[in-house]
Amino acid sequence: MHITILGGGGFLGRKLAARLSETGTLAGETISSLTLFDMAPPPAPEKAPFPVRCLTGDVADPQALGEAIPPETRVVFQLAAVVSAAAEADFDLGVRVNLQGSLALIEVARRCGVPPRIVFTSSVASFSGDQSTVMADDARQMPLNSYGAEKAAAELMLQDASRRGMLDAVNIRLPTVIVRPGRPNKAASSFVSAILREPLLGLETSLPVDEAFALWVSSPRVVVGWLLKAAEMDTSALGTDRGINPPGLTVTVGEMLAALSPAERALVKSEPDPVVAGIVGGWPARFAATRALALGFQPQVGLAEILQAFREDDLAQTRAERGH
Amino acid sequence: MHITILGGGGFLGRKLAARLSETGTLAGETISSLTLFDMAPPPAPEKAPFPVRCLTGDVADPQALGEAIPPETRVVFQLAAVVSAAAEADFDLGVRVNLQGSLALIEVARRCGVPPRIVFTSSVASFSGDQSTVMADDARQMPLNSYGAEKAAAELMLQDASRRGMLDAVNIRLPTVIVRPGRPNKAASSFVSAILREPLLGLETSLPVDEAFALWVSSPRVVVGWLLKAAEMDTSALGTDRGINPPGLTVTVGEMLAALSPAERALVKSEPDPVVAGIVGGWPARFAATRALALGFQPQVGLAEILQAFREDDLAQTRAERGH
Ligand SMILES: NC(=O)c1ccc[n+]([C@@H]2O[C@H](COP(=O)([O-])OP(=O)(O)OC[C@H]3O[C@@H](n4cnc5c(N)ncnc54)[C@H](O)[C@@H]3O)[C@@H](O)[C@H]2O)c1
Ligand SMILES: NC(=O)c1ccc[n+]([C@@H]2O[C@H](COP(=O)([O-])OP(=O)(O)OC[C@H]3O[C@@H](n4cnc5c(N)ncnc54)[C@H](O)[C@@H]3O)[C@@H](O)[C@H]2O)c1
Repeated sequence: MHITILGGGGFLGRKLAARLSETGTLAGETISSLTLFDMAPPPAPEKAPFPVRCLTGDVADPQALGEAIPPETRVVFQLAAVVSAAAEADFDLGVRVNLQGSLALIEVARRCGVPPRIVFTSSVASFSGDQSTVMADDARQMPLNSYGAEKAAAELMLQDASRRGMLDAVNIRLPTVIVRPGRPNKAASSFVSAILREPLLGLETSLPVDEAFALWVSSPRVVVGWLLKAAEMDTSALGTDRGINPPGLTVTVGEMLAALSPAERALVKSEPDPVVAGIVGGWPARFAATRALALGFQPQVGLAEILQAFREDDLAQTRAERGH
Repeated sequence: MHITILGGGGFLGRKLAARLSETGTLAGETISSLTLFDMAPPPAPEKAPFPVRCLTGDVADPQALGEAIPPETRVVFQLAAVVSAAAEADFDLGVRVNLQGSLALIEVARRCGVPPRIVFTSSVASFSGDQSTVMADDARQMPLNSYGAEKAAAELMLQDASRRGMLDAVNIRLPTVIVRPGRPNKAASSFVSAILREPLLGLETSLPVDEAFALWVSSPRVVVGWLLKAAEMDTSALGTDRGINPPGLTVTVGEMLAALSPAERALVKSEPDPVVAGIVGGWPARFAATRALALGFQPQVGLAEILQAFREDDLAQTRAERGH
């Protein structure tokens, strides 16, 4: 089967491509070829047992997308996105990539021989709530940011296209994925990975919220497992509702800091930032995820597993890139 | 103040234009001019106390829309839509008008001197439920049709543009508006108006559901009142949530038939249609509408008022047009 990853050069796209390249199969079928599509040339996974095409283009351009999704494509992972801080800074860019990109995907997917499975990565940022809210599976999406609004709107259209049989979408609303490699950035969520990653690199970092602050998180390893599950599952169990709140983990900042050694812990400096606290305070920290568990999505077990995944998968390369 | 009605040539657009022309004011200010915009040339209301421009164009074309919405525009009523049966028959058309039309509106509204009030007519068809569901104000929109999905997606984007201060939207989810003049058509909801309108014209009509079947309805008069209220209200009371479920009326088919004379009643023939019953069976018939009532939206009082509005406002012209 042919598989395409849109946003295949990103954080999760690379990890997903690597996993597909290790297994060589999906849903019990041999992967015949893989297309990676991104703005900049996406790197091919090492030692893939199938041919890999690496294409560049804009996901909102139906012509470029048509090349990335040949008619025999059976699964499309739609990970291409302008993330929250960038979509907030540039409304037009966010609408184009996060919403028009998915409308272009519907246009292209309709030309496939068999309606392809679309695994669309939506986000917890499409919900709003507070520290005490437990989001039910049928909670409405009331986003407080443009990124979340665009994701929720794209979900609606992919869901409708599924009802019509044009494609077969699973809209999976990912938690904050930690530990993200790279450098701290201007995203309000930057600190969530930084308070673990920076101390592990021996670097100081600042904490803008208090230790009781809770978050809904998952590791990239577990997320890749969910993406594969969403690609392989029988969607007839979903009916009209194509949205999945996967079983992430609620952790407090205090628990995250307690997972560090005393010396690492000392590198995290409390610097309350009301602006950041205000933004992240509107992200729900708890989801029931009842439906996903019943469907067999594996829960994110614990913080230890998240740190272990980072140590095994990303720490060495992050050290090399950052020179620490 | 300058006002624009998109879809100004339609059923509700004409009635709204007539009302504005009668009052000459909105929110205590004199209306200086009105633009009506539609696919076909919209008729100007009679004896308007202000200049009326009648423009034709496609709401999804930002250039045509820019002409319809000059920078001094203070209120835009966005009624232009491809209705449910047509959007179900032609997916691309529905997406273009019902969703891309609202994205074009965001683009154009941003150029106005002051963020204009946008009154966007969404629909109960953006929800799903059954005969026993009472939709809460914060119920999620899980549409079972493309029209509803496009309306819900447009709502999300207009709401986000409001949060950003680009415009100031009220998304009002209208019930089925009865009695619609004209002829029976292929829409699943066609019978709802037909079982009142056709007998009043002395014509036979068929009833595809049983008499216990309940619906959420309102008269065009009351709807025009809601549209004016949505244009005049203080939106600071809404916060992020720009959606209003207005206080319509739950009526059963049996109650509708009981409002007719025995001779009129005899013209309605029971002809059960499982396809129509299946579609309309997914439309919620009851809404709490708590928020709208608290905000001062006038409730639809009764079936007698609905029939009286039709008799006074539309029956004579409908008779003339239909030759009965
Ligand atoms: N990482 C998280 O914490 C998280 C949480 C919730 C949801 N998600 C979603 O998961 C997906 C993947 O996340 P990620 O962390 O890998 O993000 P990422 O930013 O690392 O990767 C996204 C990729 O999309 C590409 N892209 C952007 N605009 C594009 C365009 N116009 N055309 C083609 N490609 C384009 C970028 O170049 C990038 O490589 C995204 O859709 C994101 O919204 C991520
Ligand atoms: N009438 C109802 O029962 C009801 C119920 C719920 C919601 N609504 C909504 O209320 C609004 C008005 O309803 P109505 O009953 O007057 O509908 P209508 O069909 O009578 O009027 C809609 C108008 O939009 C125009 N239009 C269609 N495509 C266009 C385009 N591309 N560019 C410009 N104009 C275009 C049509 O020509 C028509 O005049 C619609 O948005 C509808 O979805 C109506």
